[in-house]
Amino acid sequence: MISVIILGAGNVATHLFKAFNTSKEVSVIQWYNRNLETIKPYNNQVEITDSLETIKDADVYIFAVSDDVISELSSKLPFENKLVVHTSGSVSVYDLDKKHKRGVLYPLQTFSKDANIDFANVPICIETIDKKSYPLLKQVAQSLGSPTRRVNSDQRRVLHLAAVFVNNFTNQLYRVGHEITESEGAEFDMLKPLIMETAKKVQDMSPFKAQTGPAKRNDKKTIKKHLKLLKKQEHKNIYKLLTDSIQTTHGRKKL
Amino acid sequence: MISVIILGAGNVATHLFKAFNTSKEVSVIQWYNRNLETIKPYNNQVEITDSLETIKDADVYIFAVSDDVISELSSKLPFENKLVVHTSGSVSVYDLDKKHKRGVLYPLQTFSKDANIDFANVPICIETIDKKSYPLLKQVAQSLGSPTRRVNSDQRRVLHLAAVFVNNFTNQLYRVGHEITESEGAEFDMLKPLIMETAKKVQDMSPFKAQTGPAKRNDKKTIKKHLKLLKKQEHKNIYKLLTDSIQTTHGRKKL
Repeated sequence: MISVIILGAGNVATHLFKAFNTSKEVSVIQWYNRNLETIKPYNNQVEITDSLETIKDADVYIFAVSDDVISELSSKLPFENKLVVHTSGSVSVYDLDKKHKRGVLYPLQTFSKDANIDFANVPICIETIDKKSYPLLKQVAQSLGSPTRRVNSDQRRVLHLAAVFVNNFTNQLYRVGHEITESEGAEFDMLKPLIMETAKKVQDMSPFKAQTGPAKRNDKKTIKKHLKLLKKQEHKNIYKLLTDSIQTTHGRKKL
Repeated sequence: MISVIILGAGNVATHLFKAFNTSKEVSVIQWYNRNLETIKPYNNQVEITDSLETIKDADVYIFAVSDDVISELSSKLPFENKLVVHTSGSVSVYDLDKKHKRGVLYPLQTFSKDANIDFANVPICIETIDKKSYPLLKQVAQSLGSPTRRVNSDQRRVLHLAAVFVNNFTNQLYRVGHEITESEGAEFDMLKPLIMETAKKVQDMSPFKAQTGPAKRNDKKTIKKHLKLLKKQEHKNIYKLLTDSIQTTHGRKKL
């Protein structure tokens, strides 16, 4: 049984705790948060603490905290030479204090407080500085039922950056769709099957091949109509820039 | 049994033909295309023609042709006072020749040649000029198993515009994600579960509520890192504009 201590109490920490709790290979033996109130609901399931001095001995320490506090918190741990990993997509593994064996366990997924997460759909990127720690960290990730991939820091950073495009920015396009439809008394609900299908399509087909629509067809008449229809300058700008981007990708002339 | 004639041979025409073919309430009695070769593979299932002069009498004529030819083709039909509808999101119902009873049957979905379509996931927007034609057209749409909605021209246009945002533009963000990851030797495949989850999330939650990430958190450090990491100016521009848009939506200060 691999013993794990979780530090932090955000969405990632909470989802990890719940998932490890159903695992047969990993046991969360303690949960640390500087504010004890947040994790108190779990104190019948796990030992909780807000004091680094009381932190136990464990095989792996998982930091699921804000990027900004990773470095400082890792240097405050009152021991050394143990495997300490963070879960951030963009923070260097070297930000962890060098007195530890260091690594990263980065779950490439969006976590909400409310929505349940099936870790089978959470690819986990693993990075370790010393090679010996890799199999242990891989075992921890696999115990969640997740597919794992060894990545280096550059690959992890780029995956995190790409995730912002396909998740945050895509969601903002959904938001624009919501604004546009509701402003005209149409229903955003009508777009939901299209949103699902657009995501499904690229599961087996490259986004390049999946592209359709007025920008790709260079249908100037429709593009002009659409720009006229948009009321907010912000929406016009997004329309123009992404139409341009599609036309660059597909070798059409620019607007 | 409602008799239908399809005009055109693109993706929408082909998917409609296949779906009507399994319907018990609608029969496709003829399929017209100006180029007979395209529809020849179907000539053991339906009568095909490339001559408007030979077009039969039917309850509904469905135009699944390019936006540009709807007007001209409808005026060339050698009869009048029959229900003639087009399937375009952006063309006015009045573009159809006024000698016909006119309407629109707009399927709000992305159609690929290869991918199979379940019409249960294709909301159909219905518009008719005379009220009497509405129930017939609704019956035709429902025979496909599709949810239907009566919309006016403004609502249809705005749904088509919003569809460009949530489908074409979103797909282009997937494409950028693909470019960025592959350029660094990381795998786009790792992003696929995140793409699905992002689409799933807004099925039950507003895009406003679903938003996460550095732009929403106003995490300037990560935003700066990301902009530095992006090599193409085009990608930097998209990153800035959509970060800005998220911050406007969520009341943060601009970059």
